[in-house]
Amino acid sequence: MPYTKEITLPEGYTFRRLEKSDYNNNYRETLQVLTTVGEISESKFNDLFENWNALPNIFHPHVITNEQGKVVATGMLFVEKKLIHECASLGHIEDISVAKSEQGKKLGYSMIVGLTKVAQQQECYKVVLDCSPHNVGFYEKCGYGNGGNNMYIKF
Amino acid sequence: MPYTKEITLPEGYTFRRLEKSDYNNNYRETLQVLTTVGEISESKFNDLFENWNALPNIFHPHVITNEQGKVVATGMLFVEKKLIHECASLGHIEDISVAKSEQGKKLGYSMIVGLTKVAQQQECYKVVLDCSPHNVGFYEKCGYGNGGNNMYIKF
Repeated sequence: MPYTKEITLPEGYTFRRLEKSDYNNNYRETLQVLTTVGEISESKFNDLFENWNALPNIFHPHVITNEQGKVVATGMLFVEKKLIHECASLGHIEDISVAKSEQGKKLGYSMIVGLTKVAQQQECYKVVLDCSPHNVGFYEKCGYGNGGNNMYIKF
Repeated sequence: MPYTKEITLPEGYTFRRLEKSDYNNNYRETLQVLTTVGEISESKFNDLFENWNALPNIFHPHVITNEQGKVVATGMLFVEKKLIHECASLGHIEDISVAKSEQGKKLGYSMIVGLTKVAQQQECYKVVLDCSPHNVGFYEKCGYGNGGNNMYIKF
C-alpha cells in the first residue's frame, strides 16, 4: 500500500536528520517536553551521535527546525533487521517531541509522516510505535492503525 | 525495582543465544509458528546472523532448545541507545515463538523471563513489547504492565 500522506510544514521550517551541532540548538530542550533528559555533556552527546551515525542503516534521528534554524521537534526511526518475511526490516518510531511554544502547527504530524517516508525509503515492510490511548486518534490521522497493546517493565 | 521472575525450563532444556548452526536446527520452522518466514537460504541466514553478531550490544537473538538440542522457542531482544534519561538504553522484545509440539511447557514464559534478564544485564532502564489484547494476561504473569497502545502501518 503506498503511503500518500505529506509533510505540511510552515514556511521556513525544515525536516532533516539530526546534526552534531544540534547539541547547542534546542535538541535536548525539545526532548525535555517528552520526558526527563538529565545532564548530558557535549562529549556524551557526541559519543551517542557517533554511535548512531556509525550505523546509518539502523538509526535515523530526525528534527524539525523553524525559520531561525532552531530545533522545535524531535523523532527517531530505527530499523530492525529480522529473519521473518524473508529478512524484512521493521521500522520503530520513538521519542516524538514538539517544543511547547510551537504546538498547533502540526509539527508532530509532519514528524510522523517524515519518519514514515524514511522507513519506506529504507524498505521497511511495516512501522510500529507505542502511544497512550488518548493519542490513538492522532496516529490514525497519520495513517496508522491500532495493532494491540504495548507492555512494559521498568527496572 | 529488581526483577525476581525465574526461568523454569523442563530438564534438559536450555535458554541460550542463537548460533549459526541453528539454521539447520529448527529455528526457521519454530519462527514459522508466529508468522511467514519465507525462503531463507543458508547464505542469507548467515548474512543476517553476522549482521546481528557484529552488533552484540544491540542484537540479542535467543532460543530455547529441548533435550535433543533442537530449537523449540525463539525470541529477540534488541537494545536501543537513547538520549533521554541520561543516555539510557531501552530493550525491545520481538519475535517470540514456540513450536506447536512444545506448547504447555511454559517455554514462552521462560523466553520472556530470560530476555528480560538479558536486558537487565545490558543495563536497560525499561523493556517494551507489543502484543494482542488476548495476550495481556500472559505478559502480566511475566511481570509486565499495560503501557498503552501499539500503532502500526504496513506498506
